[in-house]
Amino acid sequence: MPFDFSIPTIDPLERALQPELQLAIDRKTKPPGSLGQLERVALQLGLIQQSVAPVVRRPAMIVFAGDHGIAHAGVSPYPQAVTAQMVLNFLAGGAAINAFCRLNDMMLEVVNAGVASELPSHRQLVDMPIALGTRSFLDGPAMSGAQLAQAMAAGAARVEHHARHGTNVIGFGEMGIANTSSAACLMQRLCGLPLEVCVGRGTGLDDAGLARKREILARALVRHPMAADPLETLAVFGGFEIAMMTGAYLAAARSRMLILVDGFIATAALLVAQAVAPAVLDYCVFSHASDETGHRAMLERLHARPLLALDLRLGEGTGAALALPLVRAAAAFLGEMATFDAAGVSDRA
Amino acid sequence: MPFDFSIPTIDPLERALQPELQLAIDRKTKPPGSLGQLERVALQLGLIQQSVAPVVRRPAMIVFAGDHGIAHAGVSPYPQAVTAQMVLNFLAGGAAINAFCRLNDMMLEVVNAGVASELPSHRQLVDMPIALGTRSFLDGPAMSGAQLAQAMAAGAARVEHHARHGTNVIGFGEMGIANTSSAACLMQRLCGLPLEVCVGRGTGLDDAGLARKREILARALVRHPMAADPLETLAVFGGFEIAMMTGAYLAAARSRMLILVDGFIATAALLVAQAVAPAVLDYCVFSHASDETGHRAMLERLHARPLLALDLRLGEGTGAALALPLVRAAAAFLGEMATFDAAGVSDRA
Repeated sequence: MPFDFSIPTIDPLERALQPELQLAIDRKTKPPGSLGQLERVALQLGLIQQSVAPVVRRPAMIVFAGDHGIAHAGVSPYPQAVTAQMVLNFLAGGAAINAFCRLNDMMLEVVNAGVASELPSHRQLVDMPIALGTRSFLDGPAMSGAQLAQAMAAGAARVEHHARHGTNVIGFGEMGIANTSSAACLMQRLCGLPLEVCVGRGTGLDDAGLARKREILARALVRHPMAADPLETLAVFGGFEIAMMTGAYLAAARSRMLILVDGFIATAALLVAQAVAPAVLDYCVFSHASDETGHRAMLERLHARPLLALDLRLGEGTGAALALPLVRAAAAFLGEMATFDAAGVSDRA
Repeated sequence: MPFDFSIPTIDPLERALQPELQLAIDRKTKPPGSLGQLERVALQLGLIQQSVAPVVRRPAMIVFAGDHGIAHAGVSPYPQAVTAQMVLNFLAGGAAINAFCRLNDMMLEVVNAGVASELPSHRQLVDMPIALGTRSFLDGPAMSGAQLAQAMAAGAARVEHHARHGTNVIGFGEMGIANTSSAACLMQRLCGLPLEVCVGRGTGLDDAGLARKREILARALVRHPMAADPLETLAVFGGFEIAMMTGAYLAAARSRMLILVDGFIATAALLVAQAVAPAVLDYCVFSHASDETGHRAMLERLHARPLLALDLRLGEGTGAALALPLVRAAAAFLGEMATFDAAGVSDRA
């Protein structure tokens, strides 16, 4: 498989500003460390922006949608048509991600990464499908190397578009019936964990459905030998939306954005991105721990501390959109709070 | 001790609307249950407002400030003067709670419940001190029964004021050097847990300071026999700000508000409120699990599921203010999302 996508150089965070930032955080009128994870996010945002007064500017959510050949094997309780139907729902403003982006003043863009049917043109839809869905990875690799490179470049291009318009905080969401199957296989191969740890109920399989999904994915894993390369693993098991998201992560870090990481599938794409460019993690904030089996183990693998404890398992980027106000809160306390000196508050006895 | 505060009758939530609300939640274009705790909050908000389209109206944060005689025993690393200094910081807009209330469009009111010094008048300050701080509970009850009743009535009155102005979501915060000591004693008596589980580092005691705080509070607990009544326990160990907050919880539930519960001290006040009127819990959403020792055990005792995982330990109502966008998100998905039928999305295979 040829890969024409060149991995961008991602600089690890420049840490020279860290002592100054930490001092700015500690001089605020609060006991040191008492804002917990928000202090960590404030420090990270400051380092990303190389500023002691970082700001959240034009935050954006990109939802990548794609269909999966494996859906026809019966791994989801919903029919494949739901992917396209949900894209139309996004465009009509009726999905959860619409409600949360509106509420939190987050720009929402929907990308057709490869839905199995043609989609109507719409100002909020970026129509750049790689194909009408992937091939089932029971039959062969889900996509070719050329398709993978095209998808990753497309995801990167969307991020670069928003970077040019000033976005400095971004989240990625996905829609694709059967994509927890794709993510579970990626997780198994990239983390080397037992398949049972990686496979969950997705949109709501019952016990029999879950057993069937496990059996199908076990067969798929046997069919494909271990790839030498994380990107080849992505080509074998990925979806077009997951591949675009992988390219998007790399471009967002390269563009020095803070990245809000959503749930199980979004974190699977990040597993690939960090395998090829570990510094991408310096730019990530983990929004929530999904109720989908496997997400917690992924988060542990990445030493991630999610901010929300909502037991979400919806995808679409909903967790990332819900966490945006917490990033704003981190910027707000750093930018707006008084210092002990300025407020005339005594520091320690 | 005479108590002149009459406990308001709090109706348990009327559940007749629950099936209709649950159906409305389940017909939204998402797998059933996939919005996790937000679905629980949406159901609760709907039941409180008896509406399938509940709204968040004029959300308010009341921060009660008071001083504690026990501060002079050396249970905090900060001097008592910090309570008044921080009140001035609230009024100047420089504290964390200011930044978060501004960010999340939450009205902020500061109540002088009994700070140890006179405070200047200010439009954002409600000046109704019970006294210039409580008595040390090493010497006797922290307050008299009459003072307790006055404090609870004052807290209730502030809530009723906001109820008249249309507030239907409210949070309570506190400021008071040494008030984790007060809360720890209340927790020990009301939960019957070992003192070590109830006492933490507060604003940041070191190991020696923590040992000293434990020793002082153990002495205080020995000095006071078990009270027959939770309100008597509150009079013995409480602060004026905790007593006002207790009255405020009861009035907020009585006024059918959704209540955002903050951290360790706010939950200690709720322990008292629910001991005298268990139905108050029907109106509560627990915003976060504090990093202060004891809070998790309190939350378990109340079967509470906090929404944020931020390791906060600041108080001031900061966790409650940070959770407000999640309550808005619950109302938004219920009010704005399309149904499967309306969006033409297939439900299950």
